[in-house]
Amino acid sequence: MRCAVILAGGSGTRLWPASRRLRPKQFLALGGAESLLAATARRLRAAAGEPMVVTAAEHAALAAAELPGATVIAEPCPRNTAAALGLAAVYALARDPDAVLGVFPADHHIGDEAAFGVAIERAFAAAAQADVIVTIGLRPTRPDTGFGYLELGEPRPDLGPEVRTVTRFVEKPDLVTARAYVVGGRHRWNGGMFFVRATRLLAELARSLPATAAGMATIAAALKDGGAAAAAATAAVYPGLPSISIDHGVMEHARDVVAVTGELGWSDVGSWAAVAELTAPDARGNAVVGDAVIVDGGGNLVVTDPGTVVALVGVSGLAVVRSGDAVLVLPLDRAQDVRAAVDALAAAGLDRAR
Amino acid sequence: MRCAVILAGGSGTRLWPASRRLRPKQFLALGGAESLLAATARRLRAAAGEPMVVTAAEHAALAAAELPGATVIAEPCPRNTAAALGLAAVYALARDPDAVLGVFPADHHIGDEAAFGVAIERAFAAAAQADVIVTIGLRPTRPDTGFGYLELGEPRPDLGPEVRTVTRFVEKPDLVTARAYVVGGRHRWNGGMFFVRATRLLAELARSLPATAAGMATIAAALKDGGAAAAAATAAVYPGLPSISIDHGVMEHARDVVAVTGELGWSDVGSWAAVAELTAPDARGNAVVGDAVIVDGGGNLVVTDPGTVVALVGVSGLAVVRSGDAVLVLPLDRAQDVRAAVDALAAAGLDRAR
Repeated sequence: MRCAVILAGGSGTRLWPASRRLRPKQFLALGGAESLLAATARRLRAAAGEPMVVTAAEHAALAAAELPGATVIAEPCPRNTAAALGLAAVYALARDPDAVLGVFPADHHIGDEAAFGVAIERAFAAAAQADVIVTIGLRPTRPDTGFGYLELGEPRPDLGPEVRTVTRFVEKPDLVTARAYVVGGRHRWNGGMFFVRATRLLAELARSLPATAAGMATIAAALKDGGAAAAAATAAVYPGLPSISIDHGVMEHARDVVAVTGELGWSDVGSWAAVAELTAPDARGNAVVGDAVIVDGGGNLVVTDPGTVVALVGVSGLAVVRSGDAVLVLPLDRAQDVRAAVDALAAAGLDRAR
Repeated sequence: MRCAVILAGGSGTRLWPASRRLRPKQFLALGGAESLLAATARRLRAAAGEPMVVTAAEHAALAAAELPGATVIAEPCPRNTAAALGLAAVYALARDPDAVLGVFPADHHIGDEAAFGVAIERAFAAAAQADVIVTIGLRPTRPDTGFGYLELGEPRPDLGPEVRTVTRFVEKPDLVTARAYVVGGRHRWNGGMFFVRATRLLAELARSLPATAAGMATIAAALKDGGAAAAAATAAVYPGLPSISIDHGVMEHARDVVAVTGELGWSDVGSWAAVAELTAPDARGNAVVGDAVIVDGGGNLVVTDPGTVVALVGVSGLAVVRSGDAVLVLPLDRAQDVRAAVDALAAAGLDRAR
């Protein structure tokens, strides 16, 4: 049985002020009709039915409201993706000892959903067919230094079309390296999606992160007594688990990793600059979500709440975001620095706006 | 009897979005504890008691609430300052045939209130002593091309200290001319304040603006039957009056105009740049009204509603104003272009935000 797992534990600080502690990025629509989480679940339904969602306890109700058909698993505290996936594997195995997990970040955007459907169908099939870990390798469209990259090896036609071995995981390269990757053609962006049998995932945890694996065994034993017992075990076990990503903790050391390659119009929606790229611009290159007037300026992103209006005069290349009680203004080419604003808010005693 | 007249009919478009149709600039506090109107009335109380306020009908209730002791005269439609002053003169004469008017814009700022008190005491005294029109001439601190200027002639020690004849009114000079004025020392800013017997004002209207004078005679006759009759007459007469300023319509043609000169720390608060100058800056030159964090930027003005927050990263020299449902962003050196934003709102069907 396939089991789609949506990792919805992110805080989305880089999209402040739209993204807030109590409603982070994955719960935002960002100009579309549905939240990123809802869109993620919708795209998975044909391939894998209703998903499991692993999210922070404080967001569990929000996730359940967004996805009435989903199984929502609440984390008592954040312990990064290795622990979250272990938890999903435990719950999936309780349903089906042959469960094949497909893991998806909750807060990404897919521009080409047909191509996405093709890719995940291939990936689920390959993971079910052999004892491999399957990732999705996305053709890089620019030398982005904020992503991890996959280095591709030989084709694996035995596992399906467009499947190749992954010879190495590369975390956030420098610009020169990233440029060489784009030109060379042998590297792909790691979009954080992968596909693996639940039993294999737990075996990898046992090998690379034994403390995490031991915690999961405790939770799995409790789950035999029902959800409440499992939740109590999780509350007891989770705080002691190491906080480490599945990439660092498992994938970089794992053997038999392959990638399904594709061009999916993928974006991690990782900054206001990324939101600007996903928003259809007007003739002057202004991308607007909500009501705005822009006099004598181009290349701006404006995002503002329904019923409100933003007016710009004589400015270009800015992100101007109004959400709830807060307004953010910064150049789009400094979109990575939103965190500095959020940190400054805390330092100024204005945490209520985080 | 002295009668302080506050002209509160302005729309204050250049301070949008804080200034709105239903609550224009004179009703805003702009960082102070009291509205500009309330501050104007407070500054006049020692010299002239409770004022008359001439304002638009739609703002009469607001003015009465701000100034419980004032006589509020409502204009059924805007007809600029000549008509507004005629109306004030009619009401003042009904109380006292010797009334001396002191006329003050409702929406200016005075930095040196003691000097202001000295100047208006001299001006009221001069206007009561002789059949002259007394203005206040403000020493220009920069070659501003947005103001009218007074050209000074001989001292008039017979009318008091620092009183000089006014030989000419100059409307909004070009920059070269304005620079010469600042250096030459013979010109003063016309701050829109003046002092004149009510009978003299009506005589000047009869000479220069006979249609306005005739309308005022009709209203004066009705006022003998009480306020309701006067209001009805005003409603009938006002729409037919010419719309012209007291400066253009009367002062530029009048004889025996003198100026009391002074340095009052005066500002017309005529733009967000002017607001920035009136707001104490931090070490990086950022002026903030409300809660804001500014990372890596200087020379900005931020104005935001109580309970809200603005965050700027990596921008300088901007005005960022959040008020109610609207946000404005523009460079402070383009502060005069706010009108373009307001016009664009109307063109975009977003008039609700005006």
